[in-house]
Amino acid sequence: MTTKLAIASDHAGYALKAELVCELRQAGHEVLDLGPDNEDRVDYPDFGFKLAEAIASGAAECGIVICGSGIGISIAANRHPAVRAALCTSGLMARLARQHNDANVLALGSRIIGIEVARDCVAEFLATPFEGGRHAGRVAKLGTILKDASA
Amino acid sequence: MTTKLAIASDHAGYALKAELVCELRQAGHEVLDLGPDNEDRVDYPDFGFKLAEAIASGAAECGIVICGSGIGISIAANRHPAVRAALCTSGLMARLARQHNDANVLALGSRIIGIEVARDCVAEFLATPFEGGRHAGRVAKLGTILKDASA
Repeated sequence: MTTKLAIASDHAGYALKAELVCELRQAGHEVLDLGPDNEDRVDYPDFGFKLAEAIASGAAECGIVICGSGIGISIAANRHPAVRAALCTSGLMARLARQHNDANVLALGSRIIGIEVARDCVAEFLATPFEGGRHAGRVAKLGTILKDASA
Repeated sequence: MTTKLAIASDHAGYALKAELVCELRQAGHEVLDLGPDNEDRVDYPDFGFKLAEAIASGAAECGIVICGSGIGISIAANRHPAVRAALCTSGLMARLARQHNDANVLALGSRIIGIEVARDCVAEFLATPFEGGRHAGRVAKLGTILKDASA
């Protein structure tokens, strides 16, 4: 099954992003690469927000975000109530994120995990269905935010 | 140095929460335990949101959230722009979360890491200062949200 997915990173995640974009396209997936296009320093919130907009607008069904630890860019992506970004350091976590949280964004730390673990996370993220049932009500509650920052 | 911190979990995180509350109080920290008080099934978003409100209101300086994988409750906490919740599976990640992201909430997966790793994450989270500098502008950008869910 092919998936239309968006991917974004910061400079620390650029190399892993480039590798995953190549592999995902070879596997037949449609990949929207939201940048950056090189390793010049950028701010991870800018790219996390960009990915979130791609999910919210429907430009992509799901996404991958990458920074050095995965922490900063996952916080950024999760600022949008349409995003459920799961920071994973193992394929097991990626599987649970799909089964229980219906995660639509996988967050990875390029300086935390190696390429094989990253591949395993991506494979589990793309292959695992949401279990629904008792998890559905909890996931629905995640669609809210607590405070309008513009207020 | 003692810290005023809030802690919350779901049923899967209850036992680890109880252990950490005990240890943190013995270490002299002021701990605001936001529940739950037993292992009956609850919804992690309710407790993630409760923790976020405690941070936003200033009732606590920082916090810890725990669910089975740490994923769901970290997404919930990060819905609030005042929260920077870092899901960590190692002390290294907790250190980086403080140094680079000025994380004010530590998220743990009680079914992912063992008690010693959890203790290491908490110790690094409480002991490590924010580096500031080039990281400060990025952290400031995390104080925004992308969409008012009530709109």
